[in-house]
Amino acid sequence: MNQKTLMNRAADNIRILTAAMVEKAKSGHPGGAMGGADFINVLFSEFLIYDPSNPFWEGRDRFYLDPGHMSPMLYSVLAMQGKFTLEDLQQFRQWGSVTPGHPERDIAHGIENTSGPLGQGHTFAAGAAVAEKYLEAHLGHEVMQHKIYAFISDGGIQEEISQGTGRLAGVLGLNNLIMFYDSNDVQLSTNCDVVMREDTEMKYKSWGWNVITINGNDVDEIRKALTLANQETERPTLIIGKTIMAKGAVQADGTSYEGDFRTHGAPLGGDAYINTIKNLGGDVENPFVIYDDVAELYAKRNAELKEIVAKRQEIEKQWAAENPEKAAKMAEWFSGKAPNIDWSNLVQKPNSPTRVASAACLGVLSEQVKNMIVSSADLCNSDRTDGFLKDTHNIIRGDFSGAFFQAGVSELTMACMCIGMYLHGGIIPACGTFFVFSDYMKPAIRMAALMRVPIKFIWSHDAFRVGEDGPTHEPVEQEAQIRLMEKLRNHNGEDSVRVFRPADVNETTVCWQMAMENMNTPTALIFSRQNVDNLPEGTNYDMARKGAYVVAGSDEQYDVILLASGSEVATLVSGASLLRADGVKVRIVSVPSEGLFRRQTKEYQEEVLPTGSKIFGLTAGLPVTLEGLVGSNGEVFGLNSFGYSAPFTVLNEKLGFTAENVYNCVKTMLNK
Amino acid sequence: MNQKTLMNRAADNIRILTAAMVEKAKSGHPGGAMGGADFINVLFSEFLIYDPSNPFWEGRDRFYLDPGHMSPMLYSVLAMQGKFTLEDLQQFRQWGSVTPGHPERDIAHGIENTSGPLGQGHTFAAGAAVAEKYLEAHLGHEVMQHKIYAFISDGGIQEEISQGTGRLAGVLGLNNLIMFYDSNDVQLSTNCDVVMREDTEMKYKSWGWNVITINGNDVDEIRKALTLANQETERPTLIIGKTIMAKGAVQADGTSYEGDFRTHGAPLGGDAYINTIKNLGGDVENPFVIYDDVAELYAKRNAELKEIVAKRQEIEKQWAAENPEKAAKMAEWFSGKAPNIDWSNLVQKPNSPTRVASAACLGVLSEQVKNMIVSSADLCNSDRTDGFLKDTHNIIRGDFSGAFFQAGVSELTMACMCIGMYLHGGIIPACGTFFVFSDYMKPAIRMAALMRVPIKFIWSHDAFRVGEDGPTHEPVEQEAQIRLMEKLRNHNGEDSVRVFRPADVNETTVCWQMAMENMNTPTALIFSRQNVDNLPEGTNYDMARKGAYVVAGSDEQYDVILLASGSEVATLVSGASLLRADGVKVRIVSVPSEGLFRRQTKEYQEEVLPTGSKIFGLTAGLPVTLEGLVGSNGEVFGLNSFGYSAPFTVLNEKLGFTAENVYNCVKTMLNK
Repeated sequence: MNQKTLMNRAADNIRILTAAMVEKAKSGHPGGAMGGADFINVLFSEFLIYDPSNPFWEGRDRFYLDPGHMSPMLYSVLAMQGKFTLEDLQQFRQWGSVTPGHPERDIAHGIENTSGPLGQGHTFAAGAAVAEKYLEAHLGHEVMQHKIYAFISDGGIQEEISQGTGRLAGVLGLNNLIMFYDSNDVQLSTNCDVVMREDTEMKYKSWGWNVITINGNDVDEIRKALTLANQETERPTLIIGKTIMAKGAVQADGTSYEGDFRTHGAPLGGDAYINTIKNLGGDVENPFVIYDDVAELYAKRNAELKEIVAKRQEIEKQWAAENPEKAAKMAEWFSGKAPNIDWSNLVQKPNSPTRVASAACLGVLSEQVKNMIVSSADLCNSDRTDGFLKDTHNIIRGDFSGAFFQAGVSELTMACMCIGMYLHGGIIPACGTFFVFSDYMKPAIRMAALMRVPIKFIWSHDAFRVGEDGPTHEPVEQEAQIRLMEKLRNHNGEDSVRVFRPADVNETTVCWQMAMENMNTPTALIFSRQNVDNLPEGTNYDMARKGAYVVAGSDEQYDVILLASGSEVATLVSGASLLRADGVKVRIVSVPSEGLFRRQTKEYQEEVLPTGSKIFGLTAGLPVTLEGLVGSNGEVFGLNSFGYSAPFTVLNEKLGFTAENVYNCVKTMLNK
Repeated sequence: MNQKTLMNRAADNIRILTAAMVEKAKSGHPGGAMGGADFINVLFSEFLIYDPSNPFWEGRDRFYLDPGHMSPMLYSVLAMQGKFTLEDLQQFRQWGSVTPGHPERDIAHGIENTSGPLGQGHTFAAGAAVAEKYLEAHLGHEVMQHKIYAFISDGGIQEEISQGTGRLAGVLGLNNLIMFYDSNDVQLSTNCDVVMREDTEMKYKSWGWNVITINGNDVDEIRKALTLANQETERPTLIIGKTIMAKGAVQADGTSYEGDFRTHGAPLGGDAYINTIKNLGGDVENPFVIYDDVAELYAKRNAELKEIVAKRQEIEKQWAAENPEKAAKMAEWFSGKAPNIDWSNLVQKPNSPTRVASAACLGVLSEQVKNMIVSSADLCNSDRTDGFLKDTHNIIRGDFSGAFFQAGVSELTMACMCIGMYLHGGIIPACGTFFVFSDYMKPAIRMAALMRVPIKFIWSHDAFRVGEDGPTHEPVEQEAQIRLMEKLRNHNGEDSVRVFRPADVNETTVCWQMAMENMNTPTALIFSRQNVDNLPEGTNYDMARKGAYVVAGSDEQYDVILLASGSEVATLVSGASLLRADGVKVRIVSVPSEGLFRRQTKEYQEEVLPTGSKIFGLTAGLPVTLEGLVGSNGEVFGLNSFGYSAPFTVLNEKLGFTAENVYNCVKTMLNK
C-alpha cells in the first residue's frame, strides 16, 4: 500500500469510528467529523508535536477544536495516538464516560479545551498563540517554539466572535497560529449559501492573514498547506479546506449521502449506516477497530515523536542549566500555583473610587507577577486596568514582551482570548470593561467557569452612578446575574465563579488578594466609578475573606442590621448616623461575596446575621440581589428599573440612595 | 456665501453646539461628533427624506446611529430640523431632559433607536432594511421606497456583531441600506492601529458590499458618495469617510487638538474649549445658536421636503384607493396593535415536547399573521421555529416575499436585526435558538427591553434534558437569569421582559397567545426538547393567564403545595401519585410566569399560595429560580451544578428529577 492509500485508509478509519460512535450513542454529529477526518489525520500523524509519554509537556503543539460537535473525529484520532481506548469510544455520550458529547478539557486525554458554543474554540487558540509569543519573549525560543493549531467550521466562521479573532490575530501577526477551516458548504438548517456568500479568503486577507485554499480531503494538498503554514514568519495562516460533508456516506437506497445536511446532527441510521460502513471498508459487526496498518502508522509517528521530543527536551535541559532563573520562573509559571505577592508597599488613597483602588493593586501586580497579562476592551483608562501599565507596555506586533493586551471594542473576543492564554499554560490572565458590558461576555464566563479557568474579570462602573451616560451604560440586573454563577457549582463542587464587589479602597485590596489566590475558578471584581468613603476607622478588612463581616463602629446591641455590598455600604454608614441620632442601634455588615460567605461555618454565618434579626439591605442592583441574605425578616431597598441619564449625585437623590432614605426605610420597617 | 462655504459653516455650527453641550454638561464625547458633523449635515440637509409635519410617516427614510456617544451631533442636526429646541440642547445629559447622554428611542424627536452598546445600532438598521424590503414585497413600491441610513464608528466596526451584519446584509443584497463609517483612526484608549490594521474596504467587499472611500469631512465627496449609494441596485453600500476627530478643536496653548484621543470621552475643557469655539467662528458667551444662514439652509430643505413628501403621499393615496385591502393591511401592520388571531383550528398532539407545540402555534401564525417574520440562528429544525415555514418560505436575495429569516450561526446579530425590523415599523419579529445560547443575546435582550420592543424570543432545549450534548448545551442558570428581566421594570413601569416556560402543549398554546397579545415588551418563550406529559385532564389552561394557577386534580385540603414551571410540573404530578398513595394530600401549581403572577391581585396570589402553606418547588434550574415563590416555609429541589453528557433519562435519575425523588424530598420536608 502506498503512503497516500494508507493515509486515506486512516482517514476512512476515523470516519468509520465516527459513524459507529454516533450510531451506538443514538445521538451526535457524524457529517462534519467525517468530512474533516483527512485533515485531522494528516495533522496528527505528520505535524502535531507532542510527547507521547507526557501529555502535559509545556513545549507541545496545542490543538484547539472549535466545533465541539465534531468530537468523534477528535476522540478517534486521539484513540490512534493511544490517548483513548476503543472502549472509551463505545461509551461516547454516556454518563461518566471520558468521551462526552462535546469535548471537555482533559489534557491527559489530549483535550486542550472544552468546546461546543461555536467560535470560542479558535479564539482560545488565538489567545494561546499570544501566550506562546509572550512566554517565548520572556523565557526563550528554546522552550517556547511550538505551534498553535485550530480547527474551525462554517458555524464558527459565521459567529460574530471570529471577527474579533481574525482582526487581533492579524494585527499581532501571530504566525504561530495555524487554523484549518473545514468548509463543507452545509450547516444544520440549510446549505450555507442561504446565509453566507462571503469570500472568506478575502475576509481573512483583509485582516492580514496568510490564506491557503485547498481540497480539504486531499492528503497531499493538506500536507503542502501545513508545510507552508509552518514556514510562515509574519502572519497567522488560514487553510481553507473545501471538504465533503459526510464523506463516504451512503443512503439506505445505496445512493450517495455526501453533502446532505441531514448528516449534520443525527446518526446516519439503519441501512444508511450499514451501507456507509461497508462503503468505507469497515466491518458492520465490528466497527470499533483501528486497522493494523493504521495503528502502525501512528506507532511509527509516536516513535518519530520520541526522537523529536528527546532532542527538544535536551535543548530545554541545556537552556535550564544556562538560565537557572528563567527555568525557575518557568516552573513556577506552569505550576498552576498562585503567585507569591508582597502587598506591603501598596498605598491606597482613602475615599477613592474602587476602580482607582483596583488600579493601585494592578500596579503592584505589574511589578511582581510577570506572567500576568491584563487586557481591556478599549477602556483601560476608564476601567482603570491601565494601572497595570505601571511596569509594562502594550503587546504589539513584533514585540511580545509587553503584558498589556489591547483588545479593541470586542468584549467576547477579549474574554475568550484571555481564557486561551490560561489554557495554554504559564499565564494568569485578567480582562476589564464596564460592568454593563459583562453581558457580552456571559458565554465566555460560562466556559471559563466550566473549565475552571482562574481568569480575573475586572468590571468597573458598577451601577447607575455611571450617571450621564444613561441606562444603556448603567448596570442594574448585572450583579444578581453574575452572582448566579456563585450559586452554580462546577464539576469540582466549587462555586463556579467567585464574585467580589468591595465596599472601599481597602476592601478592594483584600478582594484583589483573594482573586490572585484563587487558582481554581474565575474571579469577578466589580468596582465603582465614583468616589466611595472609606469604611469606619478600625474596620478589620481581613474579615472580608469570610465574604461578609461586621464593619467597625457597629453597636454591640442593635435593633437592626444594615447590609450591602460595594459603595452602598458607605451609604448605610451615613444612614446609620441619622438612625443613631434617633436612638436606633445598628450593626453594619459588608458583603463583598455572598457565595464566599455561604461557604463559612454555620456558626460564623449565624454570628454575623443571627436568625431572627431584622435586616435592611441596600443595593443599587435589583432587590433580589440581597434577598437571599436579608431573608423573610427584613427588607431590601434596591433599584427595580433601568437607570436614567443625569449626574450621579442627582440620581442618588432621585432614586433614593441617600442617608436620609436609609433612615426613612429603616424607621418604617422597625415601626411595622 | 457659496454653497460649499455654507455647508461647512453648518457643519461648524454642529461642532460648536456639540462642544458647548458637552462643556455645559461637564460630561460627554465631543471628538467623534465633531468629526462626523460634515456627513450628518449633508445627509440631513440634502438626502434624508422625512415629513416635516409628521415624524411618524411610514415612508420616511430611517437614520440609525450606532455610536450613541455621538449623540450631541445627532441632537444638533435635529435641532436644525426643528425637532429639538436650543433649550433642549442645553439640558443635555440632565435629569428628565429629552437629550440623554445616549439617544433613547423617541420618534417624535427623530430618534429612531436607543444606542450606546456599539455595533447594535447599525444592526438595527440592517434589520430595518429587511423590514422595508419585506413590506415593499407585500404592499408595493409606492408606499415602501425609502432608504435606511446607518452611521457607524471604529468601535462598531470592531465589535463582533458587525461581522454578522456585514455578512447578512451582503447575502441578502440590501441595496436600501447605506452606511457611513466615520473612520477617524482614534478610539478611547489608543489610536486604532494598536488594535486594528484591517483593510475595512476589502472586508466589506468580501461580504458583497458596494464600498466607496472618501474624505469624510469634504462636502462634495460626501454628496457624490451618497448620490452613488442611492443609485445602487444590488448591494448595500458602505461609505468609508476618513474623518478628523475633533475637527476644528484647539488646545489651551493654541495648538491643534484634532485627532487627539483625549477629545473622545471628556469635555474639551477651559481654554481648549474657548479656543475651539473661537476657531470654529462661534461666540463663547453665547454658543447655543443656530446661525441664520444655517437655519435658512434647513428651512429651505424643509420646504423642499414638503413638496417631495406631498408628491409621495399623493402616490400613496392613489395606491390606497386602488389597493384598499393592502391599505387596510398596512394600516393594521403599522398600528402597533396586537393582531387578531383565530386559534380555533390549532390541534396540539398530547404529551409532545413543548417545542413541538410551539411549532404548531407558529403554523397558525404563519397563516394568519402576515407581518410576522421569524428567524433562527441555524437551528430552525431543532428549535422548531420551522413550524412557521408552514405557510411561508425563506427570505432570500431578490425575493423578500418570504417571512422566514435564516440568520446563520450568529445569535446576537439575529436578535438585533429582528429588533430593527420592529423599530422600522410594520413587522412583528420573533427569533429562536437553544436556550443556553440566550447568553449570546443578553445585550440585545436588554436593548429590546429598554426600547419596549415586543419581539418574541423562542428558546428551546430548556434544561439538562438536552442530554448527550452535555454541559455546554445544558441551561441551568439561564431561567433565573432571564427572569431577572421580569423583575426589572422599563421606564413605563412594566416588567421589562415577559417570560413564559409552559408546562405542556396546551399551556404552550396559551403562552403563545399571551406572547402575541403583548405588544408592550419583549416576550421570552422557553420550551422543552423532550416529550412532556399533559397536565391532568380538566386543567383550566386559561388560568395560565394569571402567571400561576392550580392544576386539575389537586386536593381541596392539602398538606403541601408542589410548585414548578415547564416540564417539572409533570414530574410533580407523578410524584403526587406516590404521595397520595401514602396519604399525603397535595395541591399542584404551575407557574409559567412568576412576573405575571406577581402582577395579580394580592387576593389571587394568596388564593394560589396561601401564607403559611408548606411549599415544595422543583426546578431544573438553580434553586434560586423558585425561591421567591416558595418562600421561607418551603424547600426547593433544583440543580446547583453544570449538567452532564448522557441520555436525559439517565440524567433524570442521576440528578433526582423523578417521581420517587419528589416523594422522598416532600416526605422528608413534611417530617421535619
